[in-house]
Amino acid sequence: MPKIVDHDLRKKQIAEASWRVILKQGMEGATVRNIANEAGLSLGALRYYFSTQDELLEYAMNLVIERVTERIKKIALKELPPKEKILQILLEFVPTDSEKMAEMEVWFTFVGYIRHKKDVFDAQYDGIYHGLRNLIHYMDQEKLLRKNLNTELEIERLYSLVDGTAMHALLDPDRLEKDRIYQLFVYHLNSICIDEI
Amino acid sequence: MPKIVDHDLRKKQIAEASWRVILKQGMEGATVRNIANEAGLSLGALRYYFSTQDELLEYAMNLVIERVTERIKKIALKELPPKEKILQILLEFVPTDSEKMAEMEVWFTFVGYIRHKKDVFDAQYDGIYHGLRNLIHYMDQEKLLRKNLNTELEIERLYSLVDGTAMHALLDPDRLEKDRIYQLFVYHLNSICIDEI
Repeated sequence: MPKIVDHDLRKKQIAEASWRVILKQGMEGATVRNIANEAGLSLGALRYYFSTQDELLEYAMNLVIERVTERIKKIALKELPPKEKILQILLEFVPTDSEKMAEMEVWFTFVGYIRHKKDVFDAQYDGIYHGLRNLIHYMDQEKLLRKNLNTELEIERLYSLVDGTAMHALLDPDRLEKDRIYQLFVYHLNSICIDEI
Repeated sequence: MPKIVDHDLRKKQIAEASWRVILKQGMEGATVRNIANEAGLSLGALRYYFSTQDELLEYAMNLVIERVTERIKKIALKELPPKEKILQILLEFVPTDSEKMAEMEVWFTFVGYIRHKKDVFDAQYDGIYHGLRNLIHYMDQEKLLRKNLNTELEIERLYSLVDGTAMHALLDPDRLEKDRIYQLFVYHLNSICIDEI
């Protein structure tokens, strides 16, 4: 009897194998052959799920986005004071544990790679900007923000802060460890909110 | 009579050729052969200046740092009001014209590449963090900063803001154009300084 394999599950396993290859060897090593090896599949079997390398990589990138989104949704549903919830959501965008560090590394490598594949990918829009826009608007509605702030520029500032911090945490994890990121985000939130956290 | 070529000048020309190759083809295309072609040199001639690809790439990266540093030194020597000077220096770290856009793109590609070459490169330290540390300390000495700021966290925040903005300007230049970056930096400086710019 043939093994019954869930199609989506197998695609996820292949995507995760591509992450591991990228983590070990960088984008240079992320060939279809290496990824098939890592996933324990033949080249033919892999091609059944993804006909091209770019198709596989796009899927693997979207899976990173999906995971982060799921974690944030979970936090949004928690019973927490608004500012604590906001802080927890912001911390999801930066690599504060080994799992998120790996995701971020894969993401960063992808972004570098697709710069020269504009015809194939459009991953410029990763949803973070719009997510943070919603966050600032939520804070505004909840009357958490100080008066006289420029909401548009606060969104832009938060977006730069989050992505810049994520990049630094990835490149220099010894200097910018979890506690310092936490302090930085609390400090920034306090600077734009009426009440201190 | 043999052509007399300035050794350093020729190395710079080769480094610039490597930038052009990276801009066109990404790191995948940055082979010694392609770079020699772009520079109009034989492979042997290129090897005379750089014996390995990594040696060449390290030189090319350092040349980006050198250029940015030179531009900042020029601004520092200008006769300008302190806050205007600070603003101009901050704007040097983000791609606001095509030359800086190319530098940043090369830099970003390099950083992605060297993540998996830790034994060869240590470009984690690009000088920006220490430059911004000096800037915040200068603002503190000049009594430009508001009271009750945490200087350490202001350095970290500015560092994230600058690098995050640089990355976004590179990835999404249509949305984050020069005027908006200018507004964002003025806004941030005003939020930490006593007097408005």
